[in-house]
Amino acid sequence: MSLMTSTATALPFKVRDLGLAEAGRHQLRLAENEMPGLMALREEFGPSQPLAGARIAGSLHMTVQTAVLIETLTALGAQVRWASCNIFSTQDEAAAAIAVGPTGTPDAPAGVPVFAWKGESLEEYWWCTDRIFDWSAEAAEAGADWVGPNLILDDGGDATMLVHKGLEFEKAGAVPAATDADNHEYRVVLDTLRTSLGLSSDRFTRIAAELQGVTEETTTGVHRLYELHSAGQLLFPAINVNDSVTKSKFDNKYGIRHSLPDGLNRATDVLMGGKVALVAGYGDVGKGAAEALRGQGARVIVTEVDPICALQAAMDGYQVSRIESVVGEVDIFVSGTGNMNVITLEHMLAMKHLAIVSNVGHFDNEIDMAGLESLAGAERIEIKPQVHEWRLPTGRSILVLSEGRLMNLGNATGHPSFVMSNSFTNQVLAQIELWVRPEAYPIGVYVLPKHLDEKVARLHLDALGVELTELTPEQAGYIGVPVDGPYKVDHYRY
Amino acid sequence: MSLMTSTATALPFKVRDLGLAEAGRHQLRLAENEMPGLMALREEFGPSQPLAGARIAGSLHMTVQTAVLIETLTALGAQVRWASCNIFSTQDEAAAAIAVGPTGTPDAPAGVPVFAWKGESLEEYWWCTDRIFDWSAEAAEAGADWVGPNLILDDGGDATMLVHKGLEFEKAGAVPAATDADNHEYRVVLDTLRTSLGLSSDRFTRIAAELQGVTEETTTGVHRLYELHSAGQLLFPAINVNDSVTKSKFDNKYGIRHSLPDGLNRATDVLMGGKVALVAGYGDVGKGAAEALRGQGARVIVTEVDPICALQAAMDGYQVSRIESVVGEVDIFVSGTGNMNVITLEHMLAMKHLAIVSNVGHFDNEIDMAGLESLAGAERIEIKPQVHEWRLPTGRSILVLSEGRLMNLGNATGHPSFVMSNSFTNQVLAQIELWVRPEAYPIGVYVLPKHLDEKVARLHLDALGVELTELTPEQAGYIGVPVDGPYKVDHYRY
Amino acid sequence: MSLMTSTATALPFKVRDLGLAEAGRHQLRLAENEMPGLMALREEFGPSQPLAGARIAGSLHMTVQTAVLIETLTALGAQVRWASCNIFSTQDEAAAAIAVGPTGTPDAPAGVPVFAWKGESLEEYWWCTDRIFDWSAEAAEAGADWVGPNLILDDGGDATMLVHKGLEFEKAGAVPAATDADNHEYRVVLDTLRTSLGLSSDRFTRIAAELQGVTEETTTGVHRLYELHSAGQLLFPAINVNDSVTKSKFDNKYGIRHSLPDGLNRATDVLMGGKVALVAGYGDVGKGAAEALRGQGARVIVTEVDPICALQAAMDGYQVSRIESVVGEVDIFVSGTGNMNVITLEHMLAMKHLAIVSNVGHFDNEIDMAGLESLAGAERIEIKPQVHEWRLPTGRSILVLSEGRLMNLGNATGHPSFVMSNSFTNQVLAQIELWVRPEAYPIGVYVLPKHLDEKVARLHLDALGVELTELTPEQAGYIGVPVDGPYKVDHYRY
Amino acid sequence: MSLMTSTATALPFKVRDLGLAEAGRHQLRLAENEMPGLMALREEFGPSQPLAGARIAGSLHMTVQTAVLIETLTALGAQVRWASCNIFSTQDEAAAAIAVGPTGTPDAPAGVPVFAWKGESLEEYWWCTDRIFDWSAEAAEAGADWVGPNLILDDGGDATMLVHKGLEFEKAGAVPAATDADNHEYRVVLDTLRTSLGLSSDRFTRIAAELQGVTEETTTGVHRLYELHSAGQLLFPAINVNDSVTKSKFDNKYGIRHSLPDGLNRATDVLMGGKVALVAGYGDVGKGAAEALRGQGARVIVTEVDPICALQAAMDGYQVSRIESVVGEVDIFVSGTGNMNVITLEHMLAMKHLAIVSNVGHFDNEIDMAGLESLAGAERIEIKPQVHEWRLPTGRSILVLSEGRLMNLGNATGHPSFVMSNSFTNQVLAQIELWVRPEAYPIGVYVLPKHLDEKVARLHLDALGVELTELTPEQAGYIGVPVDGPYKVDHYRY
Repeated sequence: MSLMTSTATALPFKVRDLGLAEAGRHQLRLAENEMPGLMALREEFGPSQPLAGARIAGSLHMTVQTAVLIETLTALGAQVRWASCNIFSTQDEAAAAIAVGPTGTPDAPAGVPVFAWKGESLEEYWWCTDRIFDWSAEAAEAGADWVGPNLILDDGGDATMLVHKGLEFEKAGAVPAATDADNHEYRVVLDTLRTSLGLSSDRFTRIAAELQGVTEETTTGVHRLYELHSAGQLLFPAINVNDSVTKSKFDNKYGIRHSLPDGLNRATDVLMGGKVALVAGYGDVGKGAAEALRGQGARVIVTEVDPICALQAAMDGYQVSRIESVVGEVDIFVSGTGNMNVITLEHMLAMKHLAIVSNVGHFDNEIDMAGLESLAGAERIEIKPQVHEWRLPTGRSILVLSEGRLMNLGNATGHPSFVMSNSFTNQVLAQIELWVRPEAYPIGVYVLPKHLDEKVARLHLDALGVELTELTPEQAGYIGVPVDGPYKVDHYRY
Repeated sequence: MSLMTSTATALPFKVRDLGLAEAGRHQLRLAENEMPGLMALREEFGPSQPLAGARIAGSLHMTVQTAVLIETLTALGAQVRWASCNIFSTQDEAAAAIAVGPTGTPDAPAGVPVFAWKGESLEEYWWCTDRIFDWSAEAAEAGADWVGPNLILDDGGDATMLVHKGLEFEKAGAVPAATDADNHEYRVVLDTLRTSLGLSSDRFTRIAAELQGVTEETTTGVHRLYELHSAGQLLFPAINVNDSVTKSKFDNKYGIRHSLPDGLNRATDVLMGGKVALVAGYGDVGKGAAEALRGQGARVIVTEVDPICALQAAMDGYQVSRIESVVGEVDIFVSGTGNMNVITLEHMLAMKHLAIVSNVGHFDNEIDMAGLESLAGAERIEIKPQVHEWRLPTGRSILVLSEGRLMNLGNATGHPSFVMSNSFTNQVLAQIELWVRPEAYPIGVYVLPKHLDEKVARLHLDALGVELTELTPEQAGYIGVPVDGPYKVDHYRY
Repeated sequence: MSLMTSTATALPFKVRDLGLAEAGRHQLRLAENEMPGLMALREEFGPSQPLAGARIAGSLHMTVQTAVLIETLTALGAQVRWASCNIFSTQDEAAAAIAVGPTGTPDAPAGVPVFAWKGESLEEYWWCTDRIFDWSAEAAEAGADWVGPNLILDDGGDATMLVHKGLEFEKAGAVPAATDADNHEYRVVLDTLRTSLGLSSDRFTRIAAELQGVTEETTTGVHRLYELHSAGQLLFPAINVNDSVTKSKFDNKYGIRHSLPDGLNRATDVLMGGKVALVAGYGDVGKGAAEALRGQGARVIVTEVDPICALQAAMDGYQVSRIESVVGEVDIFVSGTGNMNVITLEHMLAMKHLAIVSNVGHFDNEIDMAGLESLAGAERIEIKPQVHEWRLPTGRSILVLSEGRLMNLGNATGHPSFVMSNSFTNQVLAQIELWVRPEAYPIGVYVLPKHLDEKVARLHLDALGVELTELTPEQAGYIGVPVDGPYKVDHYRY
Repeated sequence: MSLMTSTATALPFKVRDLGLAEAGRHQLRLAENEMPGLMALREEFGPSQPLAGARIAGSLHMTVQTAVLIETLTALGAQVRWASCNIFSTQDEAAAAIAVGPTGTPDAPAGVPVFAWKGESLEEYWWCTDRIFDWSAEAAEAGADWVGPNLILDDGGDATMLVHKGLEFEKAGAVPAATDADNHEYRVVLDTLRTSLGLSSDRFTRIAAELQGVTEETTTGVHRLYELHSAGQLLFPAINVNDSVTKSKFDNKYGIRHSLPDGLNRATDVLMGGKVALVAGYGDVGKGAAEALRGQGARVIVTEVDPICALQAAMDGYQVSRIESVVGEVDIFVSGTGNMNVITLEHMLAMKHLAIVSNVGHFDNEIDMAGLESLAGAERIEIKPQVHEWRLPTGRSILVLSEGRLMNLGNATGHPSFVMSNSFTNQVLAQIELWVRPEAYPIGVYVLPKHLDEKVARLHLDALGVELTELTPEQAGYIGVPVDGPYKVDHYRY
């Protein structure tokens, strides 16, 4: 860890010597053009600085898009410290650019303290996460007695979890020893908190007290929040950004429509046209995947467990079958369910030679990678990074992308900027809500009010040349909505 | 009204002499093949007769599909009386077939008392609606002292409104005189209730007391129910069938996708390919309309007021413009908003020669027909029924379909049987819920529980050759749902 | 035949008393708006009257679209006599309108002698066809010694065949007696020519001598012409209009895309969404059919014998199977091959209950109707005209549309006006070619030169709002084409 | 050039030390699975060795797919020497693998002499091309007196041109001096031939005499061949592979549909959904491009000069405009015309900020790169290789991909293997035709007979799970084709 420094004035990550900042700055400029929602917020709120006084601890993939988010938060008055929420997802040039800042240099950085690089170890990862809670340098500079941040911007809930666990162990007076049931990562978490507790008996207790809330990006993180809250353990209010229409529908449907074929191409260069593709799951992810594959001339077969989604797939013209019925005729498998063991070892053994197996759903257990890895007689050949041929005892091979993890991240570049602009505009609005209207958010988990969801959409229309029609007062009255919205009931399905 | 008879044993509508029953029976048989949900309910519930004892007053378009619904209700044990909910929508052969019944003859009908024919006057319409509340013949036959039905199956809320108004006036002791502000139809309603009150001072009071609930088909009817309930005036529980996913999404999106091009073809025979079509509104109706037009090779322009729906339209590849920006280049206008004055007189005056103007949204005020009708110098030429050329003072003409009313009903044949099978399976399940589990439904407005919504979908899969995947217990546990569903949270957007 | 009169001054068809002319005139006006190619020709060539002196005998479906064609021919200076080329295809109101003419009345017709009505007998049909060769009235009025026309505009080749057979028998001095092998229609042809020969020994010989050529609309007619020419028997030059790109591609692909779903809807009202549809043949007809069905949400399976077309279907994302492999899971069968016995009796016996069987290819032998009709135990029930349920000995039924004949004609209204405008603009240009440049066309069969094919397309662009880019001289030189086209080599595939 | 050696036994290219052969061999194995046409030829013709005795000089991009082609040619008995036809297109690992051969090692290569590496200079390029005509080592080994190859497999015509120019200058006795009008590359060609002439006065004369023909891959090369032949200068027969349906339609339409979005993604990661894309040209390339963009949710505007193609675009639902009318609203420009100056400097100056400008048509002059490069005040910034931001004097920037050259090659990986399998199966069949049936091909330019075109398609069906239907003899007779094809007339348009 000698490569890193936590002083706020030095460049706080190991890439400071790599000279990537300039390259990253070019990419930021291009990304800004594709993130009209964030740029509109800068224009609208820059003058009034609604986030002045906010100290945001961010834990979210440190990409070029996130860099535009961070600079939007600071443009609205916030102070920010940042870590990635995934050991592989950092784009080092983005981290460099954001750390150097628009006006700084690698030797005199003027940006945001960033604790993230591509390819962290788990130990490094949790050290980085811990760092975003250490605002001592900023406090010293401001002559204040802050311990930590007053807001968290979270993706997956790791930052939020660290505070909750930290406080729990501080209350208990000790961090428990790891048990045999604990996996490696949890042991690292325990070690990280043990170190913290060694330095201070009430650090996270004081951090929790300062925190005004968290905004959470993902399904997984939101799920954790609802569980905490229903267990009566949630320490501060939370806004569920994930379930904004402009987040979930756009990330899932339009993001996957973009990045699935991109990942297939970069991984395999295989022609999709004429091929048989199986999409497991016809939620928003599956809908986007199926549309993308059909748009490239593939024949798509859908599998579903939910009869409503299955009926939708049929109505959209797709064959809906059980995987067992068609496994031997499929060229490309795409799992997008969020469930486990969707593609089993038995399925893999029945596949065509060199069938492609990929996951755009959730964790790598959508595909039974563990079963494959322990299969006697199976051989793994790296064709290139994130693309492996598995020679099976059957004499056939299959091609597994990203080792069964999300191929849109591993083989492609994740969601494009325009999609992230929707997500992140929700994030910024949610941060503003928690900061300027704390009275509206007692401890609990909230979705953004619909008029803000609509506002996010509205900020992305000009860039696409969309002309929005305005209701006349008479029309608005006729359907019983305000002229400026919100226009739909909360349960409207879009 | 001498053409009609209200005796339950005679054939209670004027088409009894027309010999249409056999033709209607053929059509029923074909429709049954396209309504697998209803047929599955007959198979599942026929033996147990869950609707035994139920006396259902139905007010819903008396079409072939409704005939299959009615015979499903009776197959499950219910007694039924029926009226249409629209003066034009009855298919006389369907009414004849259902009145005669599968085993009866026109002279010895063995079916359901039906009060509906194509082309009723408003006076006849409300007389028919009143008739479905008169169960004296059935009571006499059963040796019971019923006054009326114990369940309503409603479409648009007219039947429900009649009971509520009837009781209100009975309480007041008199039906008020019509005022200048009352339109013709409301005057007829008042007359109808005045007649009733003349015969009995507490008829609707007693009917209301017997009623165990209503299931409502439409947005409009549901809206009335919520208003009644929030005003504390709702007399019995109501199930909102309209907002079942398998109702609203299917009716609106897939129904319109089917019937919009059908109506355009039957009305005009105009090639859609290559034409510019404007779809006003990108809700489910607009989504279905746009998909259908694109599928025929038209170039679709969308107008929207809701920025989220506008962004969806853009993401789906459609141009989104204000109507004023493009009105002069559009060949086919389709309004699907549910709002008023979406297509104004000013728009019509700016259209291309022989532009087609049509409505698949809601009432005929989506298009400013009143403005057109009062336009000096405009001339209306009937090309054929429901297709009128309006010669405008500009020297150009436009083609108006169905006089601005719903062209999928006026120029086509409405939703196809398979779509209605989804709606109506919801209706039957809702009737069963109210009948067999009254304790679960105190006065209020409910949507069907999600497991029943899923059940409706499930019953339609086999007919489409869909194979549904089953969750393993392990998978179900992993995502925290029962193996048999429901699979989604209530606010899931599909 | 007493209903008819052949005097040129009287209204020469039986509908003269029906008062349909005004209705037909309205429809013509609407159709003119959808036939921009023909209207452009009127504008371009009206002043110069290139068809002055031309006497055109037309044999082509007497529809509203054909009426616009006829009035275009006369607007360019031609004289015209017309018959239909099919006993069922005449729209009587179109015939009435064209006979009365824009300025005439039913009592004082000022239009074109038309010999066509819906539902002719074969005897009437061939009498009508004979009538278009009798120009005695016109000759008398002009003080000329013409016998017949100097140009034929043909669809299917019946008019051309009558001349060739007539001359053949005149040479032989007698019409042969019918043999047992001759079908009923050929016997009628022989009778018709026997009557002619009784009146004149050299009538068709003289007609043939006057004829400057024929333009032929269809594949079938073109095939006959090539056969005649290769046998050395062709009597005059012929232009093959069928193989213009703007005819074959548009009629087949875009025409079927329009009229197939239209026919299915009018015949059955069945929801296409979610259904399995089989399209036999993936030529232009099949391509249009598959696109239309997919556009309505059906899942399409293609059958093909040509590996290139099969590969195209696969590349377009369709399943390609043999009919035997999938027959039991298909809801809608559409044959579009031009071949025979594509759907066999064996197939029909294996179909799902109430599967729909239809033909958009060619003759009714695409489906083995003969086999079905002679099947012991099969029962035919007319659901409505052109829609028959066949109850099969298997206990299942199938729905056969248009008795196996072209359902886009029998259940829908054929090609829409815009498609026919392309075909008919080719026809008019071909007539002009033969008439004004006879030296360019020695006896033989020709396709229109590509610059005229391009001209046809060009005349249809404005109506669709298409802006065409113009080559700069430098660009034209670079790719070696004239600035104004033609732009492609003759074998270009589009 | 010391890195290279021309001895047939040593590894004849500079990558021999790089150890890429094994990586290339893995990729070959994957590519073989996607090139079923070539693998089927190996199976069908391996035993009979139809290319025994053939000495093939190949000049075609030395990619993985070409490696599978080369090993197919040798599997059929041919000897082969190979160069690339482009200085950048070689994949070094493919060259290494093919040189080493399946059974050789880098130290003891047992493959094909390959003269190609990524990033050749023009001098190196033409030296490599010269090397494929030097068969002295093979002759020595065989004890034969060959000078060169007896067949050429060409892409773009460089190899063919070298022979024709070589013979021309040998006849003249001297290579002319370069003139001021000669570009750099032609000067290199002259130098190359001057060296050759210095070594032998009749080398190319003797090579030409030995040559039995050439098969040509591209439009450009075919154009040169037709010019040579019409000038009476063609020295040996040529087969135009480019115009096989299974080549031109597949390369252009399906290849571009695949590689255009791939290139856009790899270059810019920009979301296509919701964007406005302009496709210049609606030939097969434009059709594929437009379909791909629509499939990703972009709104596509087409520009066209040919009215037939313009009408097709309109019928397919695209807006067709002149570029000037829409230039300011377009996000992504794609030129696919094969013409010059399609996107002019004036257009570029009017574009949106950061509009993307790309070419999938032909040469880099589709876009006026020369004008852009000489524009005063314009600045070029490399975002990454093949992606440049041009800051314009207007204050706006544009993004130019691949410096205006083919972006599907420069930013993506060209056509995928399955597409190339179609092209290359045509190539192999064409080589066999020239070798085994020379009497059928007197000097001239030929397309492959349709039955071979159909055969190419047929060999690709199994891999896609396509079941082909077989005509019955009765059916074949009915439409007048052999049961086994060919099924269509030569001018059929598919």
